[in-house]
Amino acid sequence: MGGDGNSAYGHKKFKRSKSHFADRITADGRDGWPVESGRYRLVVSRACPWASRAVISRRLLGLERALPMAVTDPVQDDRSWRFTLDPGGRDPVLGIRYLAEAYEKREPGAPGGVSVPAIVDVPSGELVTNDYQQLTLDLATEWTDLHREGAPDLYPEHLRDEIDEVMAEVYEDVNNGVYRAGFASDQEEYEEACAGVFRRLEALAERLAGQRYLVGDTITEADIRLFTTLVRFDPVYHGHFKCNLWKLTENPVLWAYARDLFQTPGFGDTVDFDHIKRHYYQVHSGINPTGIVPLGPDLSGWLSPHHREELGGRPFGDGTPPGPVAPHERVGPRGLPA
Amino acid sequence: MGGDGNSAYGHKKFKRSKSHFADRITADGRDGWPVESGRYRLVVSRACPWASRAVISRRLLGLERALPMAVTDPVQDDRSWRFTLDPGGRDPVLGIRYLAEAYEKREPGAPGGVSVPAIVDVPSGELVTNDYQQLTLDLATEWTDLHREGAPDLYPEHLRDEIDEVMAEVYEDVNNGVYRAGFASDQEEYEEACAGVFRRLEALAERLAGQRYLVGDTITEADIRLFTTLVRFDPVYHGHFKCNLWKLTENPVLWAYARDLFQTPGFGDTVDFDHIKRHYYQVHSGINPTGIVPLGPDLSGWLSPHHREELGGRPFGDGTPPGPVAPHERVGPRGLPA
Repeated sequence: MGGDGNSAYGHKKFKRSKSHFADRITADGRDGWPVESGRYRLVVSRACPWASRAVISRRLLGLERALPMAVTDPVQDDRSWRFTLDPGGRDPVLGIRYLAEAYEKREPGAPGGVSVPAIVDVPSGELVTNDYQQLTLDLATEWTDLHREGAPDLYPEHLRDEIDEVMAEVYEDVNNGVYRAGFASDQEEYEEACAGVFRRLEALAERLAGQRYLVGDTITEADIRLFTTLVRFDPVYHGHFKCNLWKLTENPVLWAYARDLFQTPGFGDTVDFDHIKRHYYQVHSGINPTGIVPLGPDLSGWLSPHHREELGGRPFGDGTPPGPVAPHERVGPRGLPA
Repeated sequence: MGGDGNSAYGHKKFKRSKSHFADRITADGRDGWPVESGRYRLVVSRACPWASRAVISRRLLGLERALPMAVTDPVQDDRSWRFTLDPGGRDPVLGIRYLAEAYEKREPGAPGGVSVPAIVDVPSGELVTNDYQQLTLDLATEWTDLHREGAPDLYPEHLRDEIDEVMAEVYEDVNNGVYRAGFASDQEEYEEACAGVFRRLEALAERLAGQRYLVGDTITEADIRLFTTLVRFDPVYHGHFKCNLWKLTENPVLWAYARDLFQTPGFGDTVDFDHIKRHYYQVHSGINPTGIVPLGPDLSGWLSPHHREELGGRPFGDGTPPGPVAPHERVGPRGLPA
């Protein structure tokens, strides 16, 4: 839920707030929001790891036409996520300048910050959900009628207990652990969080040394959630959040695992390193007052051979990889590894 | 000249000020300060790369008894370098709490900051010099009567032109380049400095691929000056100063070169990683407002084999390595690679 990390900094122990809007879009429409092609708009920032889960899931599942996407400016201003990348500074479909307007339309004066990913109901302009934990699970399990042919099963029923367990550990220590380290307000809090990040990463490296994916032999939601943190590790978490015991590139197993996913259609083709770096370094003035964005690291290694196919595994199970990215959704040249 | 880096931050382009006190201690005493055993006190911070040059030279040349040393707290307060590591917070020989008192005694109300390395005349308590560029050259060439038996020639006459040329490039782009990157006040200034650091490091790596030391086949002042920046590179310059195109450990030639020197008596035994990290991260509140000191990087690699002896070279020329560090000058366990 990109949006409120910085505001929590410096006051007290960093605590990620719960999503305020937790309606679900389901096949049966029981919350009043039935799955429907073209009705909703997914609002994301390519900088944000929580939103990036949804960008990847949508690609893997082939939901691009059924669920169009709006990409915000990676740098929020005091009114939060904004559509300054679009002509006239407005989202061409919703007609709004700030994502906050959809929040306000849903519930005037709602408490809590504005965060991505968010799904907006296009006809009413109202926010439906910003529940980043549930959102991708619903794309995988409720939007099935609209999946492309050959879409993988990202949340297979017989593996859900194991997937949930891995995701809970990865969330606590890694996805959110890097934020607790980066936004720690004292040395002790930082050290505990940072040590926890690396303890968990070491354990994950051990698990992944002999198997290609986290659970089962195909890509699941668990891999998506670990990937979105790993891809940001060296560019921002290593320096900006002080998670610097080692770089991802220094851990042979995790670095190969992350490259394998990066080179899988639907993963690396959603990543914008320019958005990632500018967001973190320019927005978090509490830990980077100059707003200067580092030149490094060298990102060319992301495209190097990973040899993980030697471990076997079937990336898409009985399915197939997604096709190429639609031209209007391609990441710009500055955001690619070079 | 550790001391005024931070004060220059944020106002204008970072510019290192010239040493205000440039008297020289010479064999003939022409500035009024003759070389004399036990008369002077070298004041250093083990955090500071400029002061660390003098700490290394003094060890290599065996000047420990002739020129006793005072080590300041790595974290300055608003009166700058202080003797809070000593009993009662006073240097036991000079009897002062702050290095500034020796500056004040020499020239009340002197302009410019307080910096290390500094040499103080013990009888009068007056500062003699804080000229970090000249100080080590004089230890090598003026203090020769007091050198230990087997002391190396760190500034051999027939190589001085080449040494001076290399040192000038290393100073501009590397020693001071990392500070210009870290204290840059805008993106352009940072990028220019950071790119310059790595351009020069690449060139140095090329030079050092086939020869063990920078100039000739023995250790010279040029190696000392490159070493003091390299040893700080991953612990502080990589993250804190955003010099992050790659870590030193990712450059095979420079990493082996730095380890070779680190493992040479007189180099690594002077390095206190705890002082280095606490100084940079706690003092520069303009770029690290939280004052939190990172846990990383893993420093254990500093003691791994470097294989540079295969390139030949005679570290001490016709001389010998220095003996072990005197017990009262040993670096504490927190400062050592672990």
